Amino acid sequence: MKIKQTNKLWGHAFNSTPDKKTLIFTSGRDVIGLPPSDAALIIYDVWVNKAHAVMMAKTGCIPLISARHILHGLTELESLVANGTFVLDEEKEDVHSNIESWLTNAIGIEHAGVLHTARSRNDQVMTDMRLFLKDQVVSTMNNSVALATSLISVAEVYKRAPFPGFTHHQHAMTTTFGHILLGFAAMVLRDCERLEHWVSLHNHNPLGNVASYGTSYPINRKLTSDYLGFDSPDHNSLDAINNRWEAEADFVFALSVLMNHLSIIAETLITLGVPEFCMITLSDMYSTGSSVMPQKKNPDPLEVIKGKAAYVQGQLMSLLSIGKGAFIGYNRDSQMTKHIVMDCIFECESAPLVLSGVLETMTVHADVMEAWCHKGFIGATTLMENIAQSQHIPMRIAKVMVEKAVMYSKGEQSVTYAALCKAAQEESVVMKITEAEVVYWQTPQAIISLSKSYGGPGKNSMNVSTKKLKQKIQKVHAFIHTREEKDIHAKKLLNTAIESLMKGGE
Amino acid sequence: MKIKQTNKLWGHAFNSTPDKKTLIFTSGRDVIGLPPSDAALIIYDVWVNKAHAVMMAKTGCIPLISARHILHGLTELESLVANGTFVLDEEKEDVHSNIESWLTNAIGIEHAGVLHTARSRNDQVMTDMRLFLKDQVVSTMNNSVALATSLISVAEVYKRAPFPGFTHHQHAMTTTFGHILLGFAAMVLRDCERLEHWVSLHNHNPLGNVASYGTSYPINRKLTSDYLGFDSPDHNSLDAINNRWEAEADFVFALSVLMNHLSIIAETLITLGVPEFCMITLSDMYSTGSSVMPQKKNPDPLEVIKGKAAYVQGQLMSLLSIGKGAFIGYNRDSQMTKHIVMDCIFECESAPLVLSGVLETMTVHADVMEAWCHKGFIGATTLMENIAQSQHIPMRIAKVMVEKAVMYSKGEQSVTYAALCKAAQEESVVMKITEAEVVYWQTPQAIISLSKSYGGPGKNSMNVSTKKLKQKIQKVHAFIHTREEKDIHAKKLLNTAIESLMKGGE
Amino acid sequence: MKIKQTNKLWGHAFNSTPDKKTLIFTSGRDVIGLPPSDAALIIYDVWVNKAHAVMMAKTGCIPLISARHILHGLTELESLVANGTFVLDEEKEDVHSNIESWLTNAIGIEHAGVLHTARSRNDQVMTDMRLFLKDQVVSTMNNSVALATSLISVAEVYKRAPFPGFTHHQHAMTTTFGHILLGFAAMVLRDCERLEHWVSLHNHNPLGNVASYGTSYPINRKLTSDYLGFDSPDHNSLDAINNRWEAEADFVFALSVLMNHLSIIAETLITLGVPEFCMITLSDMYSTGSSVMPQKKNPDPLEVIKGKAAYVQGQLMSLLSIGKGAFIGYNRDSQMTKHIVMDCIFECESAPLVLSGVLETMTVHADVMEAWCHKGFIGATTLMENIAQSQHIPMRIAKVMVEKAVMYSKGEQSVTYAALCKAAQEESVVMKITEAEVVYWQTPQAIISLSKSYGGPGKNSMNVSTKKLKQKIQKVHAFIHTREEKDIHAKKLLNTAIESLMKGGE
Amino acid sequence: MKIKQTNKLWGHAFNSTPDKKTLIFTSGRDVIGLPPSDAALIIYDVWVNKAHAVMMAKTGCIPLISARHILHGLTELESLVANGTFVLDEEKEDVHSNIESWLTNAIGIEHAGVLHTARSRNDQVMTDMRLFLKDQVVSTMNNSVALATSLISVAEVYKRAPFPGFTHHQHAMTTTFGHILLGFAAMVLRDCERLEHWVSLHNHNPLGNVASYGTSYPINRKLTSDYLGFDSPDHNSLDAINNRWEAEADFVFALSVLMNHLSIIAETLITLGVPEFCMITLSDMYSTGSSVMPQKKNPDPLEVIKGKAAYVQGQLMSLLSIGKGAFIGYNRDSQMTKHIVMDCIFECESAPLVLSGVLETMTVHADVMEAWCHKGFIGATTLMENIAQSQHIPMRIAKVMVEKAVMYSKGEQSVTYAALCKAAQEESVVMKITEAEVVYWQTPQAIISLSKSYGGPGKNSMNVSTKKLKQKIQKVHAFIHTREEKDIHAKKLLNTAIESLMKGGE
Repeated sequence: MKIKQTNKLWGHAFNSTPDKKTLIFTSGRDVIGLPPSDAALIIYDVWVNKAHAVMMAKTGCIPLISARHILHGLTELESLVANGTFVLDEEKEDVHSNIESWLTNAIGIEHAGVLHTARSRNDQVMTDMRLFLKDQVVSTMNNSVALATSLISVAEVYKRAPFPGFTHHQHAMTTTFGHILLGFAAMVLRDCERLEHWVSLHNHNPLGNVASYGTSYPINRKLTSDYLGFDSPDHNSLDAINNRWEAEADFVFALSVLMNHLSIIAETLITLGVPEFCMITLSDMYSTGSSVMPQKKNPDPLEVIKGKAAYVQGQLMSLLSIGKGAFIGYNRDSQMTKHIVMDCIFECESAPLVLSGVLETMTVHADVMEAWCHKGFIGATTLMENIAQSQHIPMRIAKVMVEKAVMYSKGEQSVTYAALCKAAQEESVVMKITEAEVVYWQTPQAIISLSKSYGGPGKNSMNVSTKKLKQKIQKVHAFIHTREEKDIHAKKLLNTAIESLMKGGE
Repeated sequence: MKIKQTNKLWGHAFNSTPDKKTLIFTSGRDVIGLPPSDAALIIYDVWVNKAHAVMMAKTGCIPLISARHILHGLTELESLVANGTFVLDEEKEDVHSNIESWLTNAIGIEHAGVLHTARSRNDQVMTDMRLFLKDQVVSTMNNSVALATSLISVAEVYKRAPFPGFTHHQHAMTTTFGHILLGFAAMVLRDCERLEHWVSLHNHNPLGNVASYGTSYPINRKLTSDYLGFDSPDHNSLDAINNRWEAEADFVFALSVLMNHLSIIAETLITLGVPEFCMITLSDMYSTGSSVMPQKKNPDPLEVIKGKAAYVQGQLMSLLSIGKGAFIGYNRDSQMTKHIVMDCIFECESAPLVLSGVLETMTVHADVMEAWCHKGFIGATTLMENIAQSQHIPMRIAKVMVEKAVMYSKGEQSVTYAALCKAAQEESVVMKITEAEVVYWQTPQAIISLSKSYGGPGKNSMNVSTKKLKQKIQKVHAFIHTREEKDIHAKKLLNTAIESLMKGGE
Repeated sequence: MKIKQTNKLWGHAFNSTPDKKTLIFTSGRDVIGLPPSDAALIIYDVWVNKAHAVMMAKTGCIPLISARHILHGLTELESLVANGTFVLDEEKEDVHSNIESWLTNAIGIEHAGVLHTARSRNDQVMTDMRLFLKDQVVSTMNNSVALATSLISVAEVYKRAPFPGFTHHQHAMTTTFGHILLGFAAMVLRDCERLEHWVSLHNHNPLGNVASYGTSYPINRKLTSDYLGFDSPDHNSLDAINNRWEAEADFVFALSVLMNHLSIIAETLITLGVPEFCMITLSDMYSTGSSVMPQKKNPDPLEVIKGKAAYVQGQLMSLLSIGKGAFIGYNRDSQMTKHIVMDCIFECESAPLVLSGVLETMTVHADVMEAWCHKGFIGATTLMENIAQSQHIPMRIAKVMVEKAVMYSKGEQSVTYAALCKAAQEESVVMKITEAEVVYWQTPQAIISLSKSYGGPGKNSMNVSTKKLKQKIQKVHAFIHTREEKDIHAKKLLNTAIESLMKGGE
Repeated sequence: MKIKQTNKLWGHAFNSTPDKKTLIFTSGRDVIGLPPSDAALIIYDVWVNKAHAVMMAKTGCIPLISARHILHGLTELESLVANGTFVLDEEKEDVHSNIESWLTNAIGIEHAGVLHTARSRNDQVMTDMRLFLKDQVVSTMNNSVALATSLISVAEVYKRAPFPGFTHHQHAMTTTFGHILLGFAAMVLRDCERLEHWVSLHNHNPLGNVASYGTSYPINRKLTSDYLGFDSPDHNSLDAINNRWEAEADFVFALSVLMNHLSIIAETLITLGVPEFCMITLSDMYSTGSSVMPQKKNPDPLEVIKGKAAYVQGQLMSLLSIGKGAFIGYNRDSQMTKHIVMDCIFECESAPLVLSGVLETMTVHADVMEAWCHKGFIGATTLMENIAQSQHIPMRIAKVMVEKAVMYSKGEQSVTYAALCKAAQEESVVMKITEAEVVYWQTPQAIISLSKSYGGPGKNSMNVSTKKLKQKIQKVHAFIHTREEKDIHAKKLLNTAIESLMKGGE
């Protein structure tokens, strides 16, 4: 007996190895630890510190010389962050304390000690979080629009492929597989609109609200807004701090709706992939095996998407419950919003991309899909519509006839001519329809070519709606681009101000 | 002993009787039953039926003569609805069955039997619900903007009234009561923006999606969109039906954030009104008594607002959980979304108005508020800022000094000159400050007049931010007006089409 | 053309008419209004009033003559309630005010005016609710145990019927359909244990806690506990009132877990019933049709169960959010718990019975189930186990071999002898197995008869676990019986006390 | 100017440094990263592996020699775990893969390769989690009972200290501070009962359910149950795996109710500690300062408890949403339940102990509490009760009189004799009460000494209910002891079996 070492509990029946990103997505926190929340805020806190220092120097609130030392120190700190040598000390309460403390050691308290003038950790953390969230919103839009693009691209391949459309989990009417996928694209693009609205609601600058009630320093909040890419300062120093759960909840709600949409796609693909359906087969890259059952190939990434949709719902509940009934002013309860939203991001950020990968690599068994479009009386509705139209009888009468005809065709897969005639007679309807018509109206090809309504699977409708959805994709790309340009511009503005400030005499 | 009948368990210590609307708001479902969900949809279903019938006749999908009978019947039905004699029969599954059945009895199946052509209850109920929700969104905006108006109006009265600003439930810095209220107005106006975005996302017409997969009739969805005040038909017949929880969740989420905001105001007013605070007293109109304790006056309407905020959170979770992992096509689970959203409306619709009433009738004890602005070292931060500014020492050093001075002033209400001097000496700071300055910088008047930052309680800031918020109110009013005009226009368009259709020969 | 009136939008393809209870269950609030919450409490409030009056008279807290008038009045009121002529007046805040007011009119304030002595609506409503909830808990146990009984009974019919056991929605190992159903029974019986624990936690008497802080009257709370079937008074007058969401949350949580279990059964039956599976067919009694598609038969009752499971989850969140961070003493927010819990009951109470009906009337296609047990390498695990056992090789080696053999048997439905030999050779395993064995170990009959572990589908295991589950059913029945006896005894005790009190001289 | 380095942003007004455990509790994930979920399962997985190996050897399912190697290897692994040198490799999916892979490297596949016989990761992880959860349940009980003990101990100190009892946030009736605390103890002890019930519901062994459908190996599940401290194996191999969210939800629900209780205590202590109340002062050990405001001492640990209560609610929602509508058999979605429950534990495990510390170190201002018991007509109810009792008039009449007397005493703090006489006259009540009685009945001392009802603040009631609660504490301790003994016994049994197995010849 030849004994070999094997580190994998499964996989000898697999043609390809799993996608690395997907493995991490599915294994997730089982084997991956999480960094402290504030680690994600370091780069934003440095940016905010710089903007604050420049503004404070320009308004004369702090000495120019101190600002220079601070800005010099922060640049050094940035390089430590970049090469990973700046680590948060858990003895210090948060990222703000850590950075101020590092700076104090580096440049002395006579300079570092002016940095926290006219601000508090309350407005500082809110500002960090707004910047962080704004980036996450844009990144989520980016991933979602990538998924929508995949969906439309696969939809175009299968835009004429007959598919047994379902309602109530039962076969309802013939449609095309492309039509189904286009419906998915439409919902994901609505998610992008919701995310875009986040920016419009929340791209306002909380810096300068200080503890909650402002300051006696003559600060210039418009200036820091410009340096940080915000549209404007907010209008009341208490508002944002009272509601340090709202921008978070808006994002997590948008994420929850997105994940619900993804879970609908996932559930659909899982179902289409069970042996009984066998309408699609997932690529081995997006499947996993069993530790004990040799034949298993499981759609783990899709299942995990459903789990994560459930996860995000709960986090939204936590955020809303934190906000409910809070007394005015900063309350420490709201601090938890930080890691709640970060955990959601950890779980979900790659979900649209993973799903995109699943879609682009799966095998579609169009023949199996089409076969079901010849069975189970799935053409009954189009038959009814064509009887009503051609024979000029009310749809309700035609429906009674076809219902009875279904009953009389028991054992068959579509309504027979004889059964229909019998039903017509019972309903005293004089029908001038040929057997060929009855057969034809129930075929998938006829159903799709007869489909006339906008939004449906008919040829013209599919072309127009595909075009409309592609236009939406362009709009989302344009928005993301404008957003990114705004940040680049803000940083350029800040850097120019820093340079000029460093150059000038005292 | 004189024995009198008394129907009230409390109230002889009350100066005024409770506001009727508020009593219903607080007693709520304890003594009020709820109508069936579909009762709220009757008027929308009639509207949808009319629009569908006209479009179907104009596109030749149904006979003109039948359309005339149908429209005639629907007009008759409308008058029954108006005088309350049309009652839903629970033997029939829903409002759609009820109306079609009534029509069949009224005009015969040869005409009524064509009405359900090229549609299904799936798209019909979604269309009804979109129209219903759109009205609710606008109505919620109306009530919210009324509350914001009250808040700003009371804020203007108290814009200079010193108030002990809180953080962590502890006195933080002196602000004004008007500043607090302005912060509340800002959050409620953000709610209006969120609601407005609902319209932009969801004012699309689902009618014509039929069961989920369209129809072979040459229907004109643009036309029904115009008749029903929608911006356009949606682009995929499956999308809306797959997501018959999303427009509902968007509304309930917006409502949940609004109610959270209201709960923050409620909690604040409740707290300010407890005997220990005694900063405000609610009007007897918005108080209730006890069945057993003779002296009690309770802020029931405010407590109930908190309860309702919790209620709405749960309903949002139900909606999201319904949507998660749904298989493609209509699923009956989604039917529950109807009454979930209606129950939220029942609980919350008058909440902004009730709160508005509370605010406009409460007595504000500005003297008590101000008294606390002389106590508990609440001026320490402004003192620190002024020391740092005037003495050109880093804020961090000034803070250590003032912290110590607070310690050395134990037993006092503000930092004493002696204590500050001792602290300064310990920190080796040579301080050139007079005792008068130390006293002055801690007074509420000084703190407010020194307040410089935008968004804070300073005079200039308050004026500008009040103006900005009033501009937002104007924008909301303008939006509501445009929205209402659009519906009026749509109905006019439909009525014109009906008239022309009724007039014409066959 | 013969035109007939028809009130039904569907049904000519149905063999039987829908179950009435199920129609109400599925249509639900669409066409059914809800009574005010307090309507459900009338009978409990009368009971509590009686118990309180008797105790108060016996302890000398109120005059005997007044107690007699009160008890006489309450008996009259009970007859009004019984014949439906006592209606809540929404001008009065609640059931307590309504009843006291009615009594005052009936017997005069000199007698009725003593009834509310030493109590408050705060403890009164809690007591009403505990009694109401206790009845609901028992009723839910009753319905659940009925479902468990159905499940076991159907399980016994199909205990040897091969079924393709799933994991990850993919075929995993052959089991029996009876084994699946027995798993469902086990979970529902755990729900009964959870409900039983509710009684142990919450069957304590809040009456006598008055507003929240007791009374100076020498009341006897042990006595009212006996009259109302409680185990004892609770131990602190503030505790229950502080937590007027907890007994509600405990019940709704138990209901939520139960509904989740039902939703798992529902999802499974829906899936087994889709055309692609065709493993079961629901009775027409538990199906509904479409308003437009003639051939449709939809599993609405099962879909609705899933929706209701989502609904109950949300209500639980509302209850928990109401409870969070409440300040001591009664708060009006907690009043909403009343209708939250009642709405859950309205939605869910008949769910176990509806599901029981579905199970007992469905058609099981055992042949289709079995056919899948010959396909898709479903026997690979048992094959692997038998290779490892018989050939004395480690399971890990056997698994690699069978994985490869699956790969080499591509295009087949089970592992071929040739493929296995090739794999064995590659792994350098010398295998002494016949082709017949390889075939046999993969057959459903072999798999089931070889199944040895307790809890699995093997014959012996199924017999023992069925017996254990039946014993659990007996225990639940016994508990319900004891519970009901306790209430009967309490009422008898109270009535005896009333009789003796009415008889005695003043 | 003397410049010193300072690492702390606050604290010079503090008398003592913060409690270390509390700092971690409040800073939490801001600066602390989380380990992978499976790290917490390593020790349980080793235990399960040992129990499985011994059972498999004893039943002849695996060779004795392999079992010996495995057990030897696992013991070595345990020592690596103990000294922290065993680290999870994220390339391997989970703890099970990690351990089996380590073992394979250590002892070779010919022995390690038999370990996974007759089991799957599905039943293995469930077993690990049950063991983990059981320990967490017991640990939560331990911490909760410690808190209850603190509460009772402080309650005893203040059992006679007058306190203005609240309802609706308004002064209701005088009670004692001890009475309030006893109410808190009662609720926390109910939490212990709920946790205890978890053990009764879920201490059953899932090991041996394998993938979901058992095995053909003649395993002995009773034996592994004994080795692992379970009461028995569960009765259906599918049940537990179908419901891999239920034991988690039961625990998180119990935790959520506990955290809600703690949040009620926290909110109460926060409120009693605001300057306007000034009834308690938190120790500096349990307070934190501000980065900017020199005078601030904030009740962060208490605020954080409220935030964590909100957090846990959301996690419960996630768990329930994961469970809803799952298809039969293991689904990967359920994997997320692992870290959801672990995150709850991370947030909440020390909460009862932190709160216990707050209670034991806070300063109670009994004089301030008592002062409020002389104000605001708080004695009106006891006055009313004593008038009704002594004058033999109905409570309803007495209430009207006292309500009016409150009105006529406007400007006073308690009902005056003159006002009462005027009210009596108006109600035609002939009153024989002295002015001294009117004064006396409204004093806190009188109210407390007159308090008669069980559960109230009266002397006798307090003594009895304190005794009852202490008995409950004893019962919880006894349960915990028995539970721990059971595990010790199980491990001893397993070790004895291992020893005997290692000793015996092959």
